[in-house]
Amino acid sequence: MNTIEGWRRRINEIDRQLVELLNERSRCAMEIGHIKHESGLPLYQPDREKEVLANAESNNHGPLPDTAIRRLFERILDEARSVERHAMEPGGSSRKDSAKHD
Amino acid sequence: MNTIEGWRRRINEIDRQLVELLNERSRCAMEIGHIKHESGLPLYQPDREKEVLANAESNNHGPLPDTAIRRLFERILDEARSVERHAMEPGGSSRKDSAKHD
Repeated sequence: MNTIEGWRRRINEIDRQLVELLNERSRCAMEIGHIKHESGLPLYQPDREKEVLANAESNNHGPLPDTAIRRLFERILDEARSVERHAMEPGGSSRKDSAKHD
Repeated sequence: MNTIEGWRRRINEIDRQLVELLNERSRCAMEIGHIKHESGLPLYQPDREKEVLANAESNNHGPLPDTAIRRLFERILDEARSVERHAMEPGGSSRKDSAKHD
């Protein structure tokens, strides 16, 4: 492990898990988008976004500084909003295939 | 699970795992920063960054589009570069506490 190559193999494994979790998160966001659409609720709920950022910071024990965690989760929230928006469109989904050909 | 609250609880759990993995990734990046510093290797290695982005896209089976995965990993790479830079500074670390008071 104590070589650059060793650490990079570990990072590659972490990145595989990150891709999986980010997609699982986006499936949840799609479900929320569908429910909001059916219930006539607004897409953008700033209080929930503040809660997500506060949770991320309170779960953070470093070494990443809270400012980095916040920047990362702001990007994650941007993508979630986009996924929810697709899910709220009539007949909308946010499957990889359709989104690729936007 | 089939309520907004249920999906949000699932997202909160995913976010806890994301914070943990992102920090584990940054610990690897710090180790790489130390090795680069000791070996006189450059911080920025664009071929490795391209490889990380290519791996992330090839591991992606949606629903997030590849463009979203790329944007997320560009942010992750930005933060990794910052962590490595701290680790390469003389006596540098990138612990949360020190980084907070930059």
